[in-house]
Amino acid sequence: MAAGGLKTYSVTFLPDNKTVEAIKGKSLFEAAVAAGVMITNVCGGDGVCGKCRVTVKSGRVKASPTMFLSREEIQRGVALACQTFVDGDAVVEVPVDSRARVGRQQATEDAIRFGRVSDHVGEGKAFRHSPLARKECLTLPPPSSQDNISDQERLFRELRRSAEIPIMQMGLPVLRRLPALFRHSHWQVTALLGWRGGATEVVDVEPGQTCALNYGVAVDMGTTTVVAHLVDLGTSETLATKAKYNSQARFGEDIITRIMYSSTPTRRTEMRELLVGDINELITGLISDAGIKPHDITYVTCAGNTTMTHFLFELDPNQIRRDPYVPVALLPPVVRAAEVGITVSARGLLAALPSVSSYVGGDVVADVLVSGMTQSQDVSLLIDMGTNGELVLGNSDWLMCCSASAGPAFEGGGITCGMRATNGALERISLRAGGHVEQFEVVGKGKPVGICGSGLIDLVGELLRVGCIDRTGSFLPEACDGHFRVGESGDREFLLFKHEETALGSEIFLTEADIRNLIHTKGSIYMAAETLLDEVGMTFGDLEHVYIAGGFGNYLRVDRAIAIGLLPDIPHETYEFIGNGSVQGAKMAMLSEEAMAYIRDRIAGSMTAIELSTHHKYMNGYSATLFLPHTDIEKFPSVVAEQANGASTEQGREKPLAIANRPSR
Amino acid sequence: MAAGGLKTYSVTFLPDNKTVEAIKGKSLFEAAVAAGVMITNVCGGDGVCGKCRVTVKSGRVKASPTMFLSREEIQRGVALACQTFVDGDAVVEVPVDSRARVGRQQATEDAIRFGRVSDHVGEGKAFRHSPLARKECLTLPPPSSQDNISDQERLFRELRRSAEIPIMQMGLPVLRRLPALFRHSHWQVTALLGWRGGATEVVDVEPGQTCALNYGVAVDMGTTTVVAHLVDLGTSETLATKAKYNSQARFGEDIITRIMYSSTPTRRTEMRELLVGDINELITGLISDAGIKPHDITYVTCAGNTTMTHFLFELDPNQIRRDPYVPVALLPPVVRAAEVGITVSARGLLAALPSVSSYVGGDVVADVLVSGMTQSQDVSLLIDMGTNGELVLGNSDWLMCCSASAGPAFEGGGITCGMRATNGALERISLRAGGHVEQFEVVGKGKPVGICGSGLIDLVGELLRVGCIDRTGSFLPEACDGHFRVGESGDREFLLFKHEETALGSEIFLTEADIRNLIHTKGSIYMAAETLLDEVGMTFGDLEHVYIAGGFGNYLRVDRAIAIGLLPDIPHETYEFIGNGSVQGAKMAMLSEEAMAYIRDRIAGSMTAIELSTHHKYMNGYSATLFLPHTDIEKFPSVVAEQANGASTEQGREKPLAIANRPSR
Repeated sequence: MAAGGLKTYSVTFLPDNKTVEAIKGKSLFEAAVAAGVMITNVCGGDGVCGKCRVTVKSGRVKASPTMFLSREEIQRGVALACQTFVDGDAVVEVPVDSRARVGRQQATEDAIRFGRVSDHVGEGKAFRHSPLARKECLTLPPPSSQDNISDQERLFRELRRSAEIPIMQMGLPVLRRLPALFRHSHWQVTALLGWRGGATEVVDVEPGQTCALNYGVAVDMGTTTVVAHLVDLGTSETLATKAKYNSQARFGEDIITRIMYSSTPTRRTEMRELLVGDINELITGLISDAGIKPHDITYVTCAGNTTMTHFLFELDPNQIRRDPYVPVALLPPVVRAAEVGITVSARGLLAALPSVSSYVGGDVVADVLVSGMTQSQDVSLLIDMGTNGELVLGNSDWLMCCSASAGPAFEGGGITCGMRATNGALERISLRAGGHVEQFEVVGKGKPVGICGSGLIDLVGELLRVGCIDRTGSFLPEACDGHFRVGESGDREFLLFKHEETALGSEIFLTEADIRNLIHTKGSIYMAAETLLDEVGMTFGDLEHVYIAGGFGNYLRVDRAIAIGLLPDIPHETYEFIGNGSVQGAKMAMLSEEAMAYIRDRIAGSMTAIELSTHHKYMNGYSATLFLPHTDIEKFPSVVAEQANGASTEQGREKPLAIANRPSR
Repeated sequence: MAAGGLKTYSVTFLPDNKTVEAIKGKSLFEAAVAAGVMITNVCGGDGVCGKCRVTVKSGRVKASPTMFLSREEIQRGVALACQTFVDGDAVVEVPVDSRARVGRQQATEDAIRFGRVSDHVGEGKAFRHSPLARKECLTLPPPSSQDNISDQERLFRELRRSAEIPIMQMGLPVLRRLPALFRHSHWQVTALLGWRGGATEVVDVEPGQTCALNYGVAVDMGTTTVVAHLVDLGTSETLATKAKYNSQARFGEDIITRIMYSSTPTRRTEMRELLVGDINELITGLISDAGIKPHDITYVTCAGNTTMTHFLFELDPNQIRRDPYVPVALLPPVVRAAEVGITVSARGLLAALPSVSSYVGGDVVADVLVSGMTQSQDVSLLIDMGTNGELVLGNSDWLMCCSASAGPAFEGGGITCGMRATNGALERISLRAGGHVEQFEVVGKGKPVGICGSGLIDLVGELLRVGCIDRTGSFLPEACDGHFRVGESGDREFLLFKHEETALGSEIFLTEADIRNLIHTKGSIYMAAETLLDEVGMTFGDLEHVYIAGGFGNYLRVDRAIAIGLLPDIPHETYEFIGNGSVQGAKMAMLSEEAMAYIRDRIAGSMTAIELSTHHKYMNGYSATLFLPHTDIEKFPSVVAEQANGASTEQGREKPLAIANRPSR
């Protein structure tokens, strides 16, 4: 049991039945990571989110005190994995709702959903097909005494017959292969040209004619989900799509927690390897589905928020979270994919979409490209609701953007019974008077496990409509027909589903704190939009289009989002869902050097980033948004009209809650 | 004694007393290489040059028959190392004149000589100081909320304050270091910018102000000698110089033998490692002399013939020697010096000077730069007499060049008692009637060991003048007062120094075959010059300048070179020695991006290479040059005049020897 003087113990995790040796004093969370068991957490192990509940079935542990557990739970052996430490051999059960959910089946379903929506949006619009990696099949004239230029120049000359390439590079490994290659292939070769920013690289040269085999992978590096599309670079066809959860989530569901974790070079290597491991797993699945070889994948483009891009290249993200929020690089170099560990062709290239600032990344830049908003004089607003919220306002002449620090409420973070939009998630609900459930829908059918973002919006909107909460988000117990209670720790709660009505036998309920979290999230997004418009002297009525991006957007019901004040009260036809703009934009960039240059120069390069946390208008207006839908109900005429038509439970104007401005970032 | 089933034996080499285990059947030559004992050879181990004589003192060997050894020698144990094979433990003595001579002392002497001559020539002339690696000491403004661009962009912005840099690259390893580096150094950093062909790379970033520490190494990769200069890139000052013999010589003194040896990837790796080992040894000496650190050497430029440049980058040179003589690359990429194994700064760059064709390399291009011939309307001829001979004709408007396949006679190759111009070499001699030695000079003083190039030219010129040979190079025995003899194998020989008059107790003599070799060498150079001029309708009288380059040029006496017909009979003041133009040109290129661009575009890029081996004029005229000085004596009026003044031994015009055209290439 002794290793290097330190006591180690066996810790077994159920139901996986995975055992790991852990040094005395390690947290159960760290032991679980070492065992490959993914426990959900939002706070990165600080003991403040209460998400990583486990049950110690037997053995010795030491636990720090926590307010997240009741006396009864502690007696049953329930513990927070990040606050409980190994002190002997132990057996620990990880309940279903504490597990970071990863599954191929679900991932594939996600990919299909993402794909379905984004098919409607202007993929490749207006950009000439000129992929970042292109193959040229060449028949070189054999040398003669009249034409005995070098092998390198012979290749360059032939490549320049079709187009002038000002700066052509070729590495020694390829140059060294030329003489034998040319002569053995009888001067029939295929050259692979790769985009290297300003220069073109002869990435590889192969014998024979292999032009038909040229594939690329576009990746959306989401904080929560990693999505990859396999593309035929010759035909632009998408051959396969895959998605999986971001394995970095074990070190925090939100990006700030992950940045805090990444404080040492070793940990940054670990974070890169987790992300790249996910990308490689997706690529393995994609090539298996499409029946191609990794060698024939010649280019990879990745879009993600600025921090995810830092993780990909193993750049230190720590200044991103510290005032004045400075990234290492917004436009990282084009490198060989192998340099970060991505397993495609050994000489294949990797480019990340450029970011705009520490909190507006390549994913948003990709959204803008996909939306087409920069190709029209119409003023459009784009809202990307991921784990964080980003907004872009503008048209073909100007672009402004900001990050709204929405927080992870829409993905289950900070919500007692919250979860991501996976199997078992309540995604849609209607209530009737008294707060009784009338109708509901669960992702994957069956009994519910928890509440995902769209379900939360529906639920709060319905509670408001039927009068169970007031416009501050406080419960009105007399209107909650038996659903209201005060919990053990004094929390005011609304019981939605009893033990026997849920998939896992755990009650599903909503607390006032949950509602406050949602209100902060929707308020920050709404206020960010209003602030951006105000910067250019416009109002919501001036918007011709509002584009909603992000996986979340696929499930969102516009009327409910307006009812709670998340989205402005403008005609529903103004709204357009672009789905996963990040992966679509990464794909468009990969298929067109023009699009890549456009992204760099016309989108990322010309976008003005507004910092909301120090913005006077935002600071002043934010508290007014912490009402349902808003302090000023006149901003939401359709809500007023609905209340006039239905059973109004309006309680009049009340003081909003005073909340710190940058709640979760 | 058994290793892997193969019998191995111990072979000891004297006087080094180095012992090596050799597999049965290995040649003594290969065993010597393995032991680190360098045995001279010209033919690359084919048993046709007879240079690699050793004495087997004891033990068992098997020898192939050879005509190079007399019965008496064989009885004494003398053997050719390349034709004698291990068949038991053995002790082998390597005599002094079979050793490939390498010594620091000599190398330093050479460097001084090269330096002395080239100081007179237009170093840096007309080119702005803009070194390929330059350091910028920067004080970056710390980020603020008004100025929170990325660390990368902060650096780029500051670098662009002084000059617009269109394409700026930075590798991940440097990018990863920026955040900690900037903050720990309190925003005082030094950026190293490196020339990468079309783009500029931020090669490295260091804390503090290190601008004063920025050095480069310029290398002449000669077939015989490798020369390196250490340069302060900031001040352009040459801090130290070193030279050493090219260790590849163990695989052939001439370049073609080395190409033939380099038939497999393993052998090409070996050849690169030998060359790079030499360069690294020189660099070690340079930094020791100058008291600097390898880390502060940021750029290396190398000039060499096309094959040497192939060896440096481990490119397959085999097509160079095969019709139609195609190199892999004339302009290899700029790479990190570490990529070929050169031990300077880990991120330091390496550039080779571009070649023109398979037989006109970067060394000649460097000569042209140094001569300044392209910066004047005067028509100049440049002759580089290395192991091969290259010629360039032209002015500021046009340039033509050719390679003259001179052969290694001037460096001791193919001459029975020939040697390089090192200690013990007879470099100057005068004879009196009867062929008796009147005066002579030996490199390093003392008794002679052998005859080097300038000594050979003197000797043959004097033999002709005093009438010991006729104009075909045949001995006239009646005029050789006791010096003439017919050797054991029937060779006609002229005995110059007896056993007791030489340093090593071996006779020094000259054979008719030696004279024929010299005649072919001088004839090919003379005829190449005449052919180049004829191509543009000019004659020797039109030349304003003749530049002589190469280490050899330092010892050459113009009047003797004219007397034997090596150089045309034009006024002596037309001749100018530029010494080692190769290393000087490499240095000028390293000190100026402008010079590097000029070399590439104006010199290498605009030079027309003439192929002599298929040239009608050359083929027809060549045989006429195989006379001393020429079939047409009227071409050498000063020789006619000298003969008229002195004791003429003119035998009238005789038929020249019929010799194959491309003798030694």
